[in-house]
Amino acid sequence: MKTITAAAIAEMVNGVILGDANTTCTGVSGVKDAAAEHVSFVGSKKYQHQLESTRAGIILINKDLEKAPLNGRTFIVCENVDWAFARVLEFFAPEPIVYAPGIHPAAVVDPSAKIGLNVHIGACAVIDREAEIGDNTVILPGAYIGVAAKVGRNCYIAPNAVVMFRCTLGDKVIVHPGVVIGGDGFGFVPGPQGLVKVPQTGIVEIGNDVEIGANTTIDRARFGKTRIKDNVKIDNQVMIAHNVEIGESSILVAQCGIAGSAEIGRGVILAAKAGINGHITIGDGVQVAGTSSVVKSLPAGAIAVGTPAETQREFLTRLNLPKKMEKLQAKLEALTAELEKLKAEQQ
Amino acid sequence: MKTITAAAIAEMVNGVILGDANTTCTGVSGVKDAAAEHVSFVGSKKYQHQLESTRAGIILINKDLEKAPLNGRTFIVCENVDWAFARVLEFFAPEPIVYAPGIHPAAVVDPSAKIGLNVHIGACAVIDREAEIGDNTVILPGAYIGVAAKVGRNCYIAPNAVVMFRCTLGDKVIVHPGVVIGGDGFGFVPGPQGLVKVPQTGIVEIGNDVEIGANTTIDRARFGKTRIKDNVKIDNQVMIAHNVEIGESSILVAQCGIAGSAEIGRGVILAAKAGINGHITIGDGVQVAGTSSVVKSLPAGAIAVGTPAETQREFLTRLNLPKKMEKLQAKLEALTAELEKLKAEQQ
Amino acid sequence: MKTITAAAIAEMVNGVILGDANTTCTGVSGVKDAAAEHVSFVGSKKYQHQLESTRAGIILINKDLEKAPLNGRTFIVCENVDWAFARVLEFFAPEPIVYAPGIHPAAVVDPSAKIGLNVHIGACAVIDREAEIGDNTVILPGAYIGVAAKVGRNCYIAPNAVVMFRCTLGDKVIVHPGVVIGGDGFGFVPGPQGLVKVPQTGIVEIGNDVEIGANTTIDRARFGKTRIKDNVKIDNQVMIAHNVEIGESSILVAQCGIAGSAEIGRGVILAAKAGINGHITIGDGVQVAGTSSVVKSLPAGAIAVGTPAETQREFLTRLNLPKKMEKLQAKLEALTAELEKLKAEQQ
Repeated sequence: MKTITAAAIAEMVNGVILGDANTTCTGVSGVKDAAAEHVSFVGSKKYQHQLESTRAGIILINKDLEKAPLNGRTFIVCENVDWAFARVLEFFAPEPIVYAPGIHPAAVVDPSAKIGLNVHIGACAVIDREAEIGDNTVILPGAYIGVAAKVGRNCYIAPNAVVMFRCTLGDKVIVHPGVVIGGDGFGFVPGPQGLVKVPQTGIVEIGNDVEIGANTTIDRARFGKTRIKDNVKIDNQVMIAHNVEIGESSILVAQCGIAGSAEIGRGVILAAKAGINGHITIGDGVQVAGTSSVVKSLPAGAIAVGTPAETQREFLTRLNLPKKMEKLQAKLEALTAELEKLKAEQQ
Repeated sequence: MKTITAAAIAEMVNGVILGDANTTCTGVSGVKDAAAEHVSFVGSKKYQHQLESTRAGIILINKDLEKAPLNGRTFIVCENVDWAFARVLEFFAPEPIVYAPGIHPAAVVDPSAKIGLNVHIGACAVIDREAEIGDNTVILPGAYIGVAAKVGRNCYIAPNAVVMFRCTLGDKVIVHPGVVIGGDGFGFVPGPQGLVKVPQTGIVEIGNDVEIGANTTIDRARFGKTRIKDNVKIDNQVMIAHNVEIGESSILVAQCGIAGSAEIGRGVILAAKAGINGHITIGDGVQVAGTSSVVKSLPAGAIAVGTPAETQREFLTRLNLPKKMEKLQAKLEALTAELEKLKAEQQ
Repeated sequence: MKTITAAAIAEMVNGVILGDANTTCTGVSGVKDAAAEHVSFVGSKKYQHQLESTRAGIILINKDLEKAPLNGRTFIVCENVDWAFARVLEFFAPEPIVYAPGIHPAAVVDPSAKIGLNVHIGACAVIDREAEIGDNTVILPGAYIGVAAKVGRNCYIAPNAVVMFRCTLGDKVIVHPGVVIGGDGFGFVPGPQGLVKVPQTGIVEIGNDVEIGANTTIDRARFGKTRIKDNVKIDNQVMIAHNVEIGESSILVAQCGIAGSAEIGRGVILAAKAGINGHITIGDGVQVAGTSSVVKSLPAGAIAVGTPAETQREFLTRLNLPKKMEKLQAKLEALTAELEKLKAEQQ
């Protein structure tokens, strides 16, 4: 079991100790669950009350917090608690799981596939014909890399993830379990005997340093490419339709969905469950609130809320309608009363 | 083919027969599709009309229903039709599929894994190193149990489900196909070269008697645990983010999502597609309506509707705004007319 | 590399050439990304400006478009650009991936399973006991076909898809990766020791020519069948609960969800993220807008928008409330002013 003193933490995070520098902890915890053997943190004034009540032995606190009675605890005042606590977390973090280079005897690698150096391929992972896997990449059990698909270097493909034929992944791509890259786009045209499938002959192209959350799906293009550019971060259960393009460093939070051929700029944030209509353009740096549905193109920097999405100001106006309506009704009643009075006086 | 008489059913469910006790049926059906050889049921007055028209040979009816002409059919009046029909369903249910103890030759079990007694492990299931599987547990084809993960006794892990490293499941846990337990939480901080991944070093801890629907994802904690407590029932395609805690016996219906570090109490019901913001607290017994998004903490017993969620009363007020507006407009016009009249009289 | 002349395209699509019939292209592209070696298209007046600016060498244009300067480009005027461009796409489409008949040595087929003629079964796919696979069907790596499940002829079951026990698929069914057919329905009743699972003893029955998108889940019936009829097209991450019935040729777009026992008619369109309550009936040809939640049954042909869903007219009324409110307020203020004036005059 690892142990650390308040003095060692203060040195590690460049903090100032209030209390006993020799206090020793053996783990980390959130403030609410913490016991005397835990390091914890309080990062903002909003949680000041937790600083009073927590039982943690050592507490990292932001320098703008009001002091609280020590009561036998030790505080470490920090410039940036988030950064400081991350250092403590690293100290206590369990050993990372290592997947050593090598191909498990129960993995199935087609003889025509090209496998780089130091690659790990787990049991029951299947690398189909003409697929290419870059150096140092880890492919875990049950994952499938399709015909002529390309996975770059230093990638991590989690168990039961699927990369379909001809799709390409850059370097340092993280693909979580159950992800599907390159399923067919959803396209049909009416025909004499019902709906006729539109062939989806394109691919998905994923840049470098992209992370894709569990059970997310990214469809292949009707033709050409569905493009996820460098540094895009995608949460779980996100749906990206065919021919969508996502600009660098955009963030797509869980369960959001982007319809076909939408173009998402750089540094865009789509909060959880947001939806983007097909064939529209979302400018750089746009932020879309959770569960909001964007139905029209948005210029760079816009903030969109609601369904259909509007500006924050419009959304707040709508939110306040019931109160406004009540005031209006009260005024109307007052006016009616006055008019009655006036009429009465006249007679 | 199994057959049963009305008399036998009446005895089984403690019901009272109206009509021919010797009527025989060979299966069950919903009232609409039922034929003479089927047992069916009508449980509430809302479906009284279906009692008139159904062709089922034997119909279980709740005691508070009005009688309908038998027309050759047999009714069985019950105290609790739901319970009674469940008994009939059990009688007719097909033999349950049995997965006999044993490890399939095409399963891959690491030599360091600990496998309990009477465990079934299907073809192409992979049990990674140091994993532990409790007695009587069934692990179906293609499922993956990660490094040092622990699955309790009498669990059922369906095909292609994934339990990632170090996560733990209690006893009698049911995990449906495609579920992902222990994917990384979604956490990034801005860095000089773009977004930097925050290591997710915690686990997911699942209690006893939990059921998890197909393709649901539960992320591992940033540190510590994402906790799903005993008896929680989770439907398909639910998303539970890192460090969330779900209290005992809560029910999460399909496609709902819970953001990071939210605390959900006991006996909470989140209806389909509901969303819960991060870092908020949902009290015991709270009910959130379908598609509603809760953005603030809720006290025990609250009922929340809409986006952003409000009380039922507030929601109904908002729903009625168009009608109220019309009335207000009519009143305003009447008042205007009166004022005009008054002015005319004055001149 | 394939090449084609404008003359050859014009012949293929029955179009009229404006410009140089000898222009040659080697690929297709969207108008925005196109270079001189690409064939592209402009289908509607909305995109007229793109016709001015695109660098594509050959552009298919709809006959109702205004002409633009050729600037060295060649236009081909078509009756139906969508159809025409689809022909060009077919010409340039990469060779389709062929999965030749045969069972991979690493596939696991139970001896009691019945496998048709010309079936392809990929590595680590598992066909469980008594399952039946029809002629010409392709089952890709990691897919699981459960005990006594039946898959028809000419089906395509993608990697890591799951068909659970006893479920049945018709002919020409396309199942994308990660799909789960036949997970348990979500049903519990309160018991003395907490929630008690209601056995889900029915199946899922899927008709012919159905397509099911990646990571979609379709639950087995409580008893009887969850039914997906012929020609239904289902996008990614759709959730279909137990005992639902979907009529012929209906279209369910990504992330929509249908609660238990709902009956969906023929030719219905549920747009992305739409939700349908349980136990209601949606008539033939109904269209539900994206993210809308339908809580009451709808007659054939209805169009439903919003949450809870209402008619387009009602939805627009609601959308316009803020503007209407402002007008009302202005009128009220004018009236108040007039009344004041009247009162002043009277004194």
